[in-house]
Amino acid sequence: MKTLKLTLSTLLVAIVFSCQETTSEEKVVSEPVTEIQNDIEKVEPPHWWIGFKNQNLQLLVKHPNIGKATPKMSYQGVSIIKVHKADSPNYLFLDLEISETAKAGQFNIKFQHEDGSELIQTYELKSREKPAEDYVGFDSSDAIYLITPDRFANANPQNDSVEGLLQQGIDRTDNYARHGGDIQGITKYLDYIEDLGFTAVWPSPVLINDMPNGSYHGYAMTDFYRVDPRFGTLDDYRNLADDLRSRNMKLIMDQVANHCGLEHWWMKDLPFKDWVNYQDLYEENIDNWDWKVTKTSNHRRTTNQDPYASQIDHREMSDGWFVSSMPDLNQRNPFMANYIIQNSIWWVETLGLGGIRQDTYPYPDKTFMSQWAGAIMTEYPNFSIVGEEWSYNPLLIGYWQEGHENKDQYDSNLKSTMDFAMQKHIVDALNEEESWDKGLVKMYEGLANDFAYTSPKDIMAFLDNHDKSRVFTEFNGDVANTKMALSYLLMLPRIPQIYYGTEILMDDFDNPGDHGLIRTDFPGGWEGDTINAFTGEGLSDAQKEMKSFLKKILNYRKTSEAIHNGKTMHFAPQDGVYVLARFIENETIVHVINKNETPIEIDLNYYEEIGLKGKTLKNVITGNTMVWDESLKLNKKGSVILTTKL
Amino acid sequence: MKTLKLTLSTLLVAIVFSCQETTSEEKVVSEPVTEIQNDIEKVEPPHWWIGFKNQNLQLLVKHPNIGKATPKMSYQGVSIIKVHKADSPNYLFLDLEISETAKAGQFNIKFQHEDGSELIQTYELKSREKPAEDYVGFDSSDAIYLITPDRFANANPQNDSVEGLLQQGIDRTDNYARHGGDIQGITKYLDYIEDLGFTAVWPSPVLINDMPNGSYHGYAMTDFYRVDPRFGTLDDYRNLADDLRSRNMKLIMDQVANHCGLEHWWMKDLPFKDWVNYQDLYEENIDNWDWKVTKTSNHRRTTNQDPYASQIDHREMSDGWFVSSMPDLNQRNPFMANYIIQNSIWWVETLGLGGIRQDTYPYPDKTFMSQWAGAIMTEYPNFSIVGEEWSYNPLLIGYWQEGHENKDQYDSNLKSTMDFAMQKHIVDALNEEESWDKGLVKMYEGLANDFAYTSPKDIMAFLDNHDKSRVFTEFNGDVANTKMALSYLLMLPRIPQIYYGTEILMDDFDNPGDHGLIRTDFPGGWEGDTINAFTGEGLSDAQKEMKSFLKKILNYRKTSEAIHNGKTMHFAPQDGVYVLARFIENETIVHVINKNETPIEIDLNYYEEIGLKGKTLKNVITGNTMVWDESLKLNKKGSVILTTKL
Repeated sequence: MKTLKLTLSTLLVAIVFSCQETTSEEKVVSEPVTEIQNDIEKVEPPHWWIGFKNQNLQLLVKHPNIGKATPKMSYQGVSIIKVHKADSPNYLFLDLEISETAKAGQFNIKFQHEDGSELIQTYELKSREKPAEDYVGFDSSDAIYLITPDRFANANPQNDSVEGLLQQGIDRTDNYARHGGDIQGITKYLDYIEDLGFTAVWPSPVLINDMPNGSYHGYAMTDFYRVDPRFGTLDDYRNLADDLRSRNMKLIMDQVANHCGLEHWWMKDLPFKDWVNYQDLYEENIDNWDWKVTKTSNHRRTTNQDPYASQIDHREMSDGWFVSSMPDLNQRNPFMANYIIQNSIWWVETLGLGGIRQDTYPYPDKTFMSQWAGAIMTEYPNFSIVGEEWSYNPLLIGYWQEGHENKDQYDSNLKSTMDFAMQKHIVDALNEEESWDKGLVKMYEGLANDFAYTSPKDIMAFLDNHDKSRVFTEFNGDVANTKMALSYLLMLPRIPQIYYGTEILMDDFDNPGDHGLIRTDFPGGWEGDTINAFTGEGLSDAQKEMKSFLKKILNYRKTSEAIHNGKTMHFAPQDGVYVLARFIENETIVHVINKNETPIEIDLNYYEEIGLKGKTLKNVITGNTMVWDESLKLNKKGSVILTTKL
Repeated sequence: MKTLKLTLSTLLVAIVFSCQETTSEEKVVSEPVTEIQNDIEKVEPPHWWIGFKNQNLQLLVKHPNIGKATPKMSYQGVSIIKVHKADSPNYLFLDLEISETAKAGQFNIKFQHEDGSELIQTYELKSREKPAEDYVGFDSSDAIYLITPDRFANANPQNDSVEGLLQQGIDRTDNYARHGGDIQGITKYLDYIEDLGFTAVWPSPVLINDMPNGSYHGYAMTDFYRVDPRFGTLDDYRNLADDLRSRNMKLIMDQVANHCGLEHWWMKDLPFKDWVNYQDLYEENIDNWDWKVTKTSNHRRTTNQDPYASQIDHREMSDGWFVSSMPDLNQRNPFMANYIIQNSIWWVETLGLGGIRQDTYPYPDKTFMSQWAGAIMTEYPNFSIVGEEWSYNPLLIGYWQEGHENKDQYDSNLKSTMDFAMQKHIVDALNEEESWDKGLVKMYEGLANDFAYTSPKDIMAFLDNHDKSRVFTEFNGDVANTKMALSYLLMLPRIPQIYYGTEILMDDFDNPGDHGLIRTDFPGGWEGDTINAFTGEGLSDAQKEMKSFLKKILNYRKTSEAIHNGKTMHFAPQDGVYVLARFIENETIVHVINKNETPIEIDLNYYEEIGLKGKTLKNVITGNTMVWDESLKLNKKGSVILTTKL
C-alpha cells in the first residue's frame, strides 16, 4: 500500500511539473534590452522583484493619452494578463504575472497607439537580496528611538533648501518651518544612538512633502516613491538602513496609507473618479480649497468597532480628510489598494526594513488595512507592523492586535498596536497623590489589563511621541518621576519606544503640547550649537545624569532575556512602593518604585514569591550588590533595579 | 431497517426502565412519620424538594456532640450516602441522595450515640410548585426598582424593634440606625411601584442581621435561612413574592456569598478550622477583635484577572475580610461551598424568585462563584443572576459575563454583570462642557464598547444605587440633566435599575456620598410624614414632574419590543445633540438629547438611515405628533422621545 501511495504522489508531482513546463513552454522569446528607454512619464512601482509569493504586479502607467495605447511585452515568465483603462485618459493599469520561472532582468513594455506610434519603457525585475525569513521585525527585545528627522541633526547643510520645491529655505526660529535635519544626520549619530542602548530607529516619514508650508513633519507625502531631497537621497536612506543593519539594529519606516499631501502629483490628474474620498467636493472647490470647504474626518474612530454606529458617521470618520491639506485616499478603489500594498512592499524590500509604523491606523478602510498588513506579512513572515490608534481604551488596543477574538471576526494581521492607555496610566500614576484608587495603582491596574490582550509583549509602549507633550513636561520637570516612568517602561513586557531628546530631558514647557515645540532641535545636531548633547558639551548635570541612567538600563535590557521574554509578577502598590519582577530560568530582575519623598524600608517577606531569599543582587544603576534578606531600604523617591545577573 | 431500529430502541428503553425499577426495589421500607420531631438544634437546609437535577443534598447538622452520633434513616428513594465529621464535635454533614423515585413527604433521621441514646429529627422533602423553566429571570424587558427596605416604608410599626436582638429601637434622626421600614412596606406600595412602570423589585437583603449596630443595610447576615424579624416574617417575604408574581412582576433577591455578620450563629462554634478565612487570626484575637486586628481585603480586585498578580495579593483580596464585622467565608471548604449553593437554591424555590443579585461578586473564590452560578442555572435554565463588580473598566464588565472569550478560559455562568462604566459615562457626559473628547461623546463612545460584550442587553445599567451618591446630587440638582440621564438609561440595550426615590429627586446634598444619607427615608412611608410621595401630597412641582416623566417612559418601555430586543443605532454627538434609535420591524423609537441651554434645530437628513422620512411620530412625553421631515426643532436642554407607535 505504502509503495503504491508513493508511486501515486510521485506521479502527481510529475504531472504538475509537466503542466508547468508546458505553460512556460509557450515559446515566449524574451526580447533583449539593448538600451534603457524611458518614454513614459511615470511607471510605478519603478521596478520590482522576482520571487515573491504573490506573483501579481499591477503597474500604474501615467502618460498623456496612454489610456488609448495597447501595451505589449515579451519576457520569459512574465506576461500582461490584464490591461485596465482609468477614468482619466492619461493612465493605464497593467496586471502582470511574474511566474516562478521568471528571471531577474530588464524588458521593454511597448505602448502602441492606433496611429502606429509607439512608446517604450524599460522595466526591471531584480533579484531579492535575502530570504523572506530574514526580514525580522522589531519585537520585545528591541528598544526604539523615535526621531523627527528635520529636528535631529543637520549633517548635510547643502540639502537644507532645494530649488524647485514649493517651500524654500529653513528657519530655525520658527517651530513650524523646516530646520534642516536630514537622513545623513541620523546616520552620522548612529554611534550615539547605539551607545545609548537602542536597537531600532523609527524616523518619522522622510518621503517627499513638496508642500508650501508646515510639512517638515513628513506626513503629507507628495510622492510615495521619492525621498524628500531636503532629507537626502534614496541612497542616503539605503545607507542609513545598511549602517543600522551592520550594527544589528533595525530601521522602522513610518508609512501613511490614509492620505497624501494636497500637492501630490496625482492630485492634478486623478486616475479615477474615486481615487480620493470626497473627490467631487474637492474638484468642485479646487480653486478655493481650504478647511472651510473640506469635509474633514469627524475623528469618531469608535465607528470602526461600534455595532451601533451609523453608516454616515463611519463614512465621515473614514472618508473625511484628516485635514484640508491631506487628501484622503480611497482604499476601496482596487487600484489604490494595490498601489499602497505594492508601495509598502517596495520599501521593505528596498531598505531591508525591520518594521513599519503605520500612521493614523483606524482612518483608512479597515478591511483594506487588514489585507494590507496580511499581504506584507505573507511576504515577510517574521516582520512587524505597528498601527497607530490613539486611544486610551484598552478594548481598542486589544481589538487591533492579530489573533484577538473579536465578535465581528475582524483580524487586523497587525503584530503590534500602540499602548496609549499605558502612557496615560504611567503619567497619571506618578503625577497623582497616592490614595486607594489614585497614584501607583493606575500603573498596577493598567498592567493588569494584559489579561485581555492577545500578546502584550508585542504591544508598543511609550511615554510620549512626536504628537504628545514631552514626558519631562508631563511631569512638570520632575526628574525623579521621569526616571521612574522610564525605568518602568523598560521593564514591561512591551516593545518600548522613546522619543529623541528624552535622554536629555527635552521639554515643551513654553507651550505644552505644541507640536512644533515638542519637535525641538536636538542640541548639537547643527553646526554652531552651543550645547552638544552628542558629546555632552554644555549639558546640565541633570541631563548628563538622565543620559547615564537611561544608558545603563537600555544596555542592561539589550541582553536581558527576563525582560524580553520572561514572566512577569507584580505586587499591589503599598505605602507608595510598587514592586515588579521579570524572570526567566537564570535571571530575575526586580524593579522597585518608591514614590515617597523620604526613604522607606520595605519588608521583603511580602515578596517571597519572587524567590530571591538569600540571593545576591546587583543594582543595575549603581553597580552595588546586596543580599535579598528581611528588608530593603529604599532611598527617597526613585526607582531601584536589581538583577541576579552579577 | 427502520422497523428494526425502532424495535431496538424500544427494547433499550425497556431495559433502562426495568433497571430503575430494580434499583428502587431494594426493599427500602419508609418508616412513617407519626409526629414531627425536632430534637436537633439545627439542620440546614431546613427542608428540601424532590425533583432537582442535582440529586445530592448535604445537610448541616448542629447539636452538642452530634459528631459522635451515627445517623440512620429509611425513606424510599432517599439514602444517606456519606457522613462527614467536622473539626468541631458539634457538627455532622450528611450527604443524601434523592433519587427520581423519591416522593414528597417527611422522614425521620435518627442520630444514635454509642451509649444507645437517640435523637430524632423529622426532615421534609416538598414537591416543587412549578416547572424549572417557569423561574424566569429579569431581562431587558424589565425595569428594576432597587429598594433599601429599612428606608422605604414602615407598614408594620409592631416589628420596628424586636426583643432579644442585639440592636434595639429605631431612630429616624440617625442615618446609621434602623428606621423601621419593612417587607410589608414594600408589599403595601406595590401598586405605586407597578403604576410607575417598574416590572421588578430588588430589595437589598432582608435576612437577619442580628448585629449590635449599623446593620440596617442587611449585608451582615447572621442566619442565611432567617428573615430579619424587624423586616417581617418568611410569610411576609412570601407574600411580597406572591403579590409581585400576581402582577407579572419579578422579585430579585440580594444574596451575599462572600461574608456573613460577625454575630452569625456559627461564629461561636465554627464547624471546620477553615470555615472562614483568616480564622486563626480571628480565634486568636476574638476578645479584642476590631479593624486594627482584622486582615481586611486589600480590595485589589484585578488580581482575579491579572496574569501577573502575586498570589499574596490575590489571597489578601479574596480572603481578607470585607470589613472587620464581616467574616469572610471560605468557599474553598467544600461544605461551605455546598452550604452557599443550597442556600441560594432554597430561596429561589421558596420565593419563586425572578433573579438574584450577588453582592461583592469578585471577592469570593471565583472558581466557586462560577460553580455556584452554574449550579443555579442548571436547576433554573431561564433564571438570571447579576454579579456586582464595582469597576469602571469595560474589560472587567466583559470578563464576568458568561460566554465571553476569556484568555484564562474562565466562564462565570453569569447572565448579567453591572455597568458601572456606563453610569460614569452618563454622569460625566452631562456634567462636562461639550468639547471634542468631553461631554456627550462619553455616552456615545461608552455605548460603542458594546462591541466587546457578549450580550450587552443582559447587562444591568443604572445611574446610582445604595452605595453611590444619588444621581440628582451627581448632577448638582440639575433636573434637566437627571431627566436626560434617565431617559437615555431607559432606551439602552440594557436591563435598567433605578434606585427608589429617584422619581422624586431624592438627594444626598448635605453630605454627598454618605451611605446613610443616600438611603434616606422615602417620604410617606412612615405614618405622620408631612410629605407623601405615594399620594403626591406635599411634593414640589419639580418632583411631580419628574415622577410623571419617569412614569411615561417606563410605561412606554414596558411593552416596547424595540427597546427590549430591538437593534440600536446612534449618531456621534454634534453641536450638543445626541441621537439614539432603537428599532424592530414595526416600531422605531428615537431618543434625542439636546444639551444646549437654548433651542436648536437639527437637520434630519443626517439621520435618514433611521428610515423615518415622512413618517408620523408621537412624542412619548407630551403625546404630540409630528412628521419626520427636513428638520426637528428641539426645545432648550432636555430629551425628546419619539415613537412610530401612535
